[in-house]
Amino acid sequence: MPKISKKGQLMPESPIRKLVPFAEKAIKNGKHIYHLNIGQPDIKTPEVALKAVKENDVEILSYSRSEGSETYRNKLANYYGQHNIKITNQDIVVTTGASEAIAFIFGSIMDVDDEVIICEPFYANYIAFATSASVKVVPIVSNIDDNFALPAIEEFEKLITPKTKAIMICNPGNPTGCLYSEKEIKQLADIVKRHDLFLISDEVYREFTYDGDSHYSILELEDLDEHTIMIDSVSKRYSMCGARVGCLVTRNETVRHTVLKFAQARLSPPTYAQIASEAALGTPQSYFEDVKNKYINRRNTLIEELHKIEGVRVSTPKGAFYCIAELPVKDSDHFAQWLLEHFDVDNETVMVAPASGFYSSAGLGKNQIRIAYVLNRRSLVKAVNIIKQALKVYNN
Amino acid sequence: MPKISKKGQLMPESPIRKLVPFAEKAIKNGKHIYHLNIGQPDIKTPEVALKAVKENDVEILSYSRSEGSETYRNKLANYYGQHNIKITNQDIVVTTGASEAIAFIFGSIMDVDDEVIICEPFYANYIAFATSASVKVVPIVSNIDDNFALPAIEEFEKLITPKTKAIMICNPGNPTGCLYSEKEIKQLADIVKRHDLFLISDEVYREFTYDGDSHYSILELEDLDEHTIMIDSVSKRYSMCGARVGCLVTRNETVRHTVLKFAQARLSPPTYAQIASEAALGTPQSYFEDVKNKYINRRNTLIEELHKIEGVRVSTPKGAFYCIAELPVKDSDHFAQWLLEHFDVDNETVMVAPASGFYSSAGLGKNQIRIAYVLNRRSLVKAVNIIKQALKVYNN
Repeated sequence: MPKISKKGQLMPESPIRKLVPFAEKAIKNGKHIYHLNIGQPDIKTPEVALKAVKENDVEILSYSRSEGSETYRNKLANYYGQHNIKITNQDIVVTTGASEAIAFIFGSIMDVDDEVIICEPFYANYIAFATSASVKVVPIVSNIDDNFALPAIEEFEKLITPKTKAIMICNPGNPTGCLYSEKEIKQLADIVKRHDLFLISDEVYREFTYDGDSHYSILELEDLDEHTIMIDSVSKRYSMCGARVGCLVTRNETVRHTVLKFAQARLSPPTYAQIASEAALGTPQSYFEDVKNKYINRRNTLIEELHKIEGVRVSTPKGAFYCIAELPVKDSDHFAQWLLEHFDVDNETVMVAPASGFYSSAGLGKNQIRIAYVLNRRSLVKAVNIIKQALKVYNN
Repeated sequence: MPKISKKGQLMPESPIRKLVPFAEKAIKNGKHIYHLNIGQPDIKTPEVALKAVKENDVEILSYSRSEGSETYRNKLANYYGQHNIKITNQDIVVTTGASEAIAFIFGSIMDVDDEVIICEPFYANYIAFATSASVKVVPIVSNIDDNFALPAIEEFEKLITPKTKAIMICNPGNPTGCLYSEKEIKQLADIVKRHDLFLISDEVYREFTYDGDSHYSILELEDLDEHTIMIDSVSKRYSMCGARVGCLVTRNETVRHTVLKFAQARLSPPTYAQIASEAALGTPQSYFEDVKNKYINRRNTLIEELHKIEGVRVSTPKGAFYCIAELPVKDSDHFAQWLLEHFDVDNETVMVAPASGFYSSAGLGKNQIRIAYVLNRRSLVKAVNIIKQALKVYNN
């Protein structure tokens, strides 16, 4: 029997995926589960996007351009212009989700065994894309104590080797909810310039910033056009995760030309989803204000409720819709599974994402979980109360 | 300025892409171009698929399952059942186009520098996916003289090394139009079994077979479940290239489990396109008969017209909608560009795909072109006549 690859063996399984069979069993046994584990918002997709697809006049569902349809890229460039990012449609390559943008970037700038430095905890799939490209993620630890702020410059410099090709951030951060300040971004700019590295920023949560803080994109940096590559997606912004439309934006022409070769190999991004994405750019500002208010209220509720539990520490998210909570447990993987298998309050339980999957340093995050506040406030209160009750039982 | 990767430099540009600027210029200068260069059919997408998207009731465009929606996979399994392929929905992973299936398979079964043997000429993007995965395509030459039949077993065995992980075929073939017989497929089965290799078959043109010949899938082979991986797509079958929905089918559970990890990393295939693809399975048989008749007539017209040109040799395609023609020229890349830049008949010219891009052995295919017969017969007659006139001028 022919064997699969070592790479295939090394490909990580999603930290949440492992829990799915236990969740399915719980549901089968009649339990109701509050899903705090996923980044699938319960927010409705903007009507304008849904309508455009329903009213499409496609007769032959043809390939679009490999770099994405021209009208969509034009409107996207305009969107970024309104967010203080001056680019042209030429600077954009539309991708099949932010996922594909990551794969194209890793392929375009890194060879086998090259390294990318990423602040941990980080989005678990970064490791999967690195494994797939046979490159290495070098983690730099950020801490719950200072809300997962950017580590000190010296810490980055300790990790830079001749194999280092890039520093990658997620801003606002999944799973941390951290939002880097302009000052922090400028520190990164300084390092990548000094060491001649790329700076990759995953900005898919760019619109979700709270408490009056605004998002500072790496594309706002001056004199760094050859270094910066931004990743974006419609998934979270318009609650259109199933569209599978993202993009990468860079003013570095060589990078774009190289990325385009990867894009041409897979022919084009999905056509219907581009119709939806283009129309979504016409979403009224009131939609975002509503959504943002919802998330702020949810976040406040969540943090408030978590603070009521003895032994729980929690970071205060400034953006995105996740937070990391530290629990008085030794092994959150075990606790998360136990919640599904052995615990309920009135036949209800909670599914959380154990945080170890968001770290690549062995042993880190074992007492942490990631909570996505994509449920309404009443559900959040109930869910956190279940965690509270559960901890009492679990720790006895 | 940070550098792109060696891999990025090695990524091939599409053989057609290079001609695009010349085509754009010709169009700008008022020339009409007959596009014989692309695999984008002019056939209408089945009404049932278009309708399903227009009448969709999505309110939150969510992620689907990473392996593809359950209802779609159920119906797909049923479709294959009607084609003598007995599988369950569990054996299918839905991908974002056949392209993604290739990438997932290469990642799952091959490590850096591993080898896959492919008959050349082959679909040019195979090289791109191999480059992206840092693996090597080992070409085995098939010939226009015998309609690009499967090379002899001994020729394959000469090429097998400890690094060889798989043999890959495209059946029916792009760019050759060859259709392997049951006997040929069983010869391949014999080799992969003896050498413990995977057998990958790209069967995206499975429905397009002519002259009463029927398609024999590698999944019809007995006792080879651990070796066979089939790739498919809705792009050509339903003229839905822009959907970006394909799949891979294998009864090898370890491969599927590994592929699924790659699939989970990119979250899910596009939701709207899956709605269209699922509905497309309800396309009436009469649609395929019409389409097939169209292609057979086009093929016959094309071959007949090409035979009228002195010095032109052409293979007779038994499937798909491409053929390879040998021209009395030394460098078909130059000829193809010259057609766009310097030739016209009554302000009309032709765009063809130079065949060198479908070979990885240096120097092969330099006097060949690939023609896609995706135009109506009148256009085909006109286009071939332009080639005829052009050759007279070009060779003087």
